[in-house]
Amino acid sequence: MSPSPQSSSPAVPALAKVRLSIDCMGGDHGPSVTLPACQSFLAAHPEAELILVGRADDLAPAASWPRTKVVAATEVVEMDDPIEVALRRKKDSSMRVAISQAKPDASGEAAAQACVSAGNTGALMAVSRYLLKTLDGIDRPAIAAVMPNKMGNYTTVLDLGANVDCTAEHLLQFAVMGSALVSAVDGKENPSVGLLNIGEEEIKGNEAIKRAGELLRAVATAGHMNFRGNVEGNDIFKGEVDIVVCDGFVGNVALKTSEGLASLIAQFLKQEFKRTPLTMLAGLLAKPVLNRLASRLDHRRYSGGALLGLRGLVFKAHGSSDAFAFEQAMNRAYDAARHGLLTRVHDRIVDTLAAMPPVTDDAPAPTAAASTA
Amino acid sequence: MSPSPQSSSPAVPALAKVRLSIDCMGGDHGPSVTLPACQSFLAAHPEAELILVGRADDLAPAASWPRTKVVAATEVVEMDDPIEVALRRKKDSSMRVAISQAKPDASGEAAAQACVSAGNTGALMAVSRYLLKTLDGIDRPAIAAVMPNKMGNYTTVLDLGANVDCTAEHLLQFAVMGSALVSAVDGKENPSVGLLNIGEEEIKGNEAIKRAGELLRAVATAGHMNFRGNVEGNDIFKGEVDIVVCDGFVGNVALKTSEGLASLIAQFLKQEFKRTPLTMLAGLLAKPVLNRLASRLDHRRYSGGALLGLRGLVFKAHGSSDAFAFEQAMNRAYDAARHGLLTRVHDRIVDTLAAMPPVTDDAPAPTAAASTA
Repeated sequence: MSPSPQSSSPAVPALAKVRLSIDCMGGDHGPSVTLPACQSFLAAHPEAELILVGRADDLAPAASWPRTKVVAATEVVEMDDPIEVALRRKKDSSMRVAISQAKPDASGEAAAQACVSAGNTGALMAVSRYLLKTLDGIDRPAIAAVMPNKMGNYTTVLDLGANVDCTAEHLLQFAVMGSALVSAVDGKENPSVGLLNIGEEEIKGNEAIKRAGELLRAVATAGHMNFRGNVEGNDIFKGEVDIVVCDGFVGNVALKTSEGLASLIAQFLKQEFKRTPLTMLAGLLAKPVLNRLASRLDHRRYSGGALLGLRGLVFKAHGSSDAFAFEQAMNRAYDAARHGLLTRVHDRIVDTLAAMPPVTDDAPAPTAAASTA
Repeated sequence: MSPSPQSSSPAVPALAKVRLSIDCMGGDHGPSVTLPACQSFLAAHPEAELILVGRADDLAPAASWPRTKVVAATEVVEMDDPIEVALRRKKDSSMRVAISQAKPDASGEAAAQACVSAGNTGALMAVSRYLLKTLDGIDRPAIAAVMPNKMGNYTTVLDLGANVDCTAEHLLQFAVMGSALVSAVDGKENPSVGLLNIGEEEIKGNEAIKRAGELLRAVATAGHMNFRGNVEGNDIFKGEVDIVVCDGFVGNVALKTSEGLASLIAQFLKQEFKRTPLTMLAGLLAKPVLNRLASRLDHRRYSGGALLGLRGLVFKAHGSSDAFAFEQAMNRAYDAARHGLLTRVHDRIVDTLAAMPPVTDDAPAPTAAASTA
């Protein structure tokens, strides 16, 4: 147990100046989306600077922009490129060059404090991991994103697909990284964490989950995490915890299942409101409400998944982002960089490791088969 | 490989007479819900018979019903009773006695061909498993239920929580049992099966999933399963496959996540339609559409989870079932029994085992840790 009762995230003073590096070629739409997003971002943040990375021709319009530097890259990682192509063949891709701008040198300084790309997730994670390396104390980087909740706010969920088999220690690290992210981006110094499990009393989680619960409780007892215990799938949307931690397989299924149900409901409403003249009138009158629902569920508002656990900040915009969504991702990257997300993750990991119960060899294997019915 | 190219489920002739045993005390509402459901069920099925199990006083109204036998049981498994209490202490519970009615004797005959209960899932599975035992070739019973899809139909998903760590062989068995269920209840002789995975090419599933895919492909090649490959969470709602197979942890999270999102959307619409006089008018006009949406998503229509893999049929109604929902579960149990679900599972398992590739010892451990990012 750690002797320190304080919160593990003392407020980090906000940086006065932040520079973002932008993969302008990534995503389904490339510069036609990223350039307008950058222009709007620059107007909204008079102190921010940008490094735009991409093909020289495509970026010519940005040559005269204020607080902007253009860095040429000759190649583009396509949305369906295998990881190997992004990693080993396209060494002058806009994605790779943009990430490399966010890599700190020996003194801890980097050209950019965070990188944003709408490029394909697998490639982005692989190249980021290769170039930036993982932070001390982190075994696996994770992808975090947010989902809307009943509080009119959003819940941060991680991991969403980077890791398909996680040990208890990995889940603990995700909780640490998620806490650091929410404290940096949302300004909550002590955000609450839930561990995704299957809730009915008689059906307990698997061994990795149970052990993760023990680790999280130990760290919470030592005052280094606001751990609220197990949560279930429906709790993601309740908003009673700020962060939901799970392995990447489960997180990805939860995310995709939600997208599928939202799409089913949208299709159903569209069909039903078209059925008769009366329902068409009703649909017309209900339009403002339905639009607000669409906006509430709109993944664009929640764009900006964070790749956490690396020695540099990388944010991922949705591949299908329009300029609005891409700018949202830039905003999140900007907030994270300005409020010292890297330092926060580092500090929290140090505190957490100090509070960890000693590892015992008789702990059950994290993924031992166990039926509980 | 099996030499047989035929479908593994030759049509089983429908039984002329089916008797269901009903746990009348189970669920949040007990006899006030189960008795009206039984009465309505008897009226709708002039050839069906019922065995009603519960406290004699509570079941007195049913004494004069046609085609109905009342069996007294003095105890009740409460919704929050631990499994141990249901299993070892309450030996004369309505749940236990109702299940025992569906236990075949040495000649294969049982008092009832299926049992229906709205009692707590963990207890129901544990007592069913204890009394009925698992079928040959099945290692783990599973819970299957249905979720609505875009085809205006529903998708059967299993396992939904009985097993938190599954091997590839377990997942294969779930696929077999799910196929048998859909063929019996929905009359599709060769229903399609998808394996729930995380879809992006660069992020592969864990070892158990990958090996399950191999097994399923081998069985499909031998003509014993209509396997369509991997599906993602959103595919549950597309309706392009009849059955989605996953481990119980993932299935439970997918189910609960869907319930959570549906609830978020319902709450949002309720609030928004109340905001102004105009939206209230819109809400009034949109009411028929919103009611149809609610009905489409209504879990009561999908009531009737099946406990599969046992030597007897047990169906689970939602704990909060009203009479309508409980009767839906009875209908599903009735269809399953009438169309020989037990025989179908048995036949399919035999065919599947014959088509299985030989087990090799160098197969990777089913849950070995593997990062794929």
